[in-house]
Amino acid sequence: MITVLSGGVGAARLLRALRRHDNGVDLSAVVNVGDDLTMHGLSICPDLDTIMYTLAGANNDDLGWGLAGETWRAMQRLGELGGENWFALGDLDLATHLYRSQRLALGATKTDVTHELSTAFGLDITLLPVSDDPIATEFDTELGTLSFQEYFVRHHHDVVVTAVRFRGASAARLSEQSRDALENSDRIIIAPSNPLISIDPILKVPGVASILARRRDDVIAVSPLVGGVALKGPTERLMRELGHDANALGVARFYQGLIGTMIIDVVDADHADAVAATGCDVRITTTVMAEDDHAMALADAVRS
Amino acid sequence: MITVLSGGVGAARLLRALRRHDNGVDLSAVVNVGDDLTMHGLSICPDLDTIMYTLAGANNDDLGWGLAGETWRAMQRLGELGGENWFALGDLDLATHLYRSQRLALGATKTDVTHELSTAFGLDITLLPVSDDPIATEFDTELGTLSFQEYFVRHHHDVVVTAVRFRGASAARLSEQSRDALENSDRIIIAPSNPLISIDPILKVPGVASILARRRDDVIAVSPLVGGVALKGPTERLMRELGHDANALGVARFYQGLIGTMIIDVVDADHADAVAATGCDVRITTTVMAEDDHAMALADAVRS
Repeated sequence: MITVLSGGVGAARLLRALRRHDNGVDLSAVVNVGDDLTMHGLSICPDLDTIMYTLAGANNDDLGWGLAGETWRAMQRLGELGGENWFALGDLDLATHLYRSQRLALGATKTDVTHELSTAFGLDITLLPVSDDPIATEFDTELGTLSFQEYFVRHHHDVVVTAVRFRGASAARLSEQSRDALENSDRIIIAPSNPLISIDPILKVPGVASILARRRDDVIAVSPLVGGVALKGPTERLMRELGHDANALGVARFYQGLIGTMIIDVVDADHADAVAATGCDVRITTTVMAEDDHAMALADAVRS
Repeated sequence: MITVLSGGVGAARLLRALRRHDNGVDLSAVVNVGDDLTMHGLSICPDLDTIMYTLAGANNDDLGWGLAGETWRAMQRLGELGGENWFALGDLDLATHLYRSQRLALGATKTDVTHELSTAFGLDITLLPVSDDPIATEFDTELGTLSFQEYFVRHHHDVVVTAVRFRGASAARLSEQSRDALENSDRIIIAPSNPLISIDPILKVPGVASILARRRDDVIAVSPLVGGVALKGPTERLMRELGHDANALGVARFYQGLIGTMIIDVVDADHADAVAATGCDVRITTTVMAEDDHAMALADAVRS
């Protein structure tokens, strides 16, 4: 059994590679909920949905987010009505949020709803929101305080960030299912997601970091920075702005004490000694999953 | 200035006829909100939307509800996900509810949102929810207590009703705008909507019935029953089940003391004396608005 601490796209690709690599392995993902938002009355969980759509093979490769074959009738009309449509919700995607919102209103937990949706999408991995309690990632920026999606989507993560907060995290309860997955899996993998805004809100839920510290020999992190560059999103820029080295070494230091092994890309081989000096084993492989055989190589490295 | 107490379809057709009849008249509608519901996290106001869509010329004549040119991508997917889709929300229609829900969440009132949406749809009449406070019409039935839409849509109003309640109505505040419209219009018209479930929840908001009683000489009701039959919906059946005569006389008795004039259809001319005996003037005309010239005749009768 493998459990993956997960953000969105990078985690989804790693999970897909792990599933392809070994059809029989029992896979769970403990997923960030700090990006979750309520908009237009709808409860939206971007990381959970990104993973779900990707693993169902229903993701939109052209856009890099959302569903394949999507249409935008509701959003277009919402714009015509003068509504806020900077956070684009496709007609098919809306169904996910309608389903979730209705079930939550009837008293289901986010964990329940995630299980129901995952089943409907035919997933054979267990998706677990790290907590059923609300956690909201917030950014102090040159434009003032922004919610995650205001920062990420509305402002295209193109503003200077001075601090990141995870509102609600310290009071959030680690879900039983997530605790079980973290306690009982043979291996815990930290996906190549943004350490500061995708993984840290998971680590900040009381219980998670202590389980990792105790089990650190079984914890493997995959660096999301390759040659100092993130494949997607603002990881590199945020690492710099918040005082970290924007490379594999900075990532290793961020996870120091929580991981037994760090996987870095071949192009970062010259960082290997410095990473090892933070107190973990280092494995060097290709970490870019754009091509299937590379993704398999990463899955190999993670499993070995 | 004319103010119309309004349910959905029948009121929308009367308002459209009044607008066509006199392009210059200042028209307001004080609209029932007892059918309003929250579903999938969305705030939905069926009567307000029916009137808005109809007056914008955007209504779906084939269905008899909703928007012309509608598509159903979100609903179809919601059904595939195992979600509740008995209350069909088209992709374009969803935009209205997304807009409203977001604005309400930001602190706007239903009155504010109705004004914004009416403007976006290009309406030249003033649509006013009777109250910004929640009112929920409920039915005691052979299947237990049902919400309005469970009764009307889910069970196709094909269940025996023993009582109707308007939860919240007695504590609801008549909106200032609705009060102004009722106090200051030259004429108040009760639309040919269902007296028991479309008009009564308006009358039950404190202040409305007393204004009508005081101004009864200026109040005209249009009977929704023609030859004892409703053009649409369960008016006839509900009148019977709840102990009223299911004809123009039953309607006149229901509005007794609140109206100065009752308009009945030519086919109900034999009821004229009995209706007059309830204490109101009677006008006889065609009340069926399916054809434009008939609608004009009704508008004439209402205005004269």
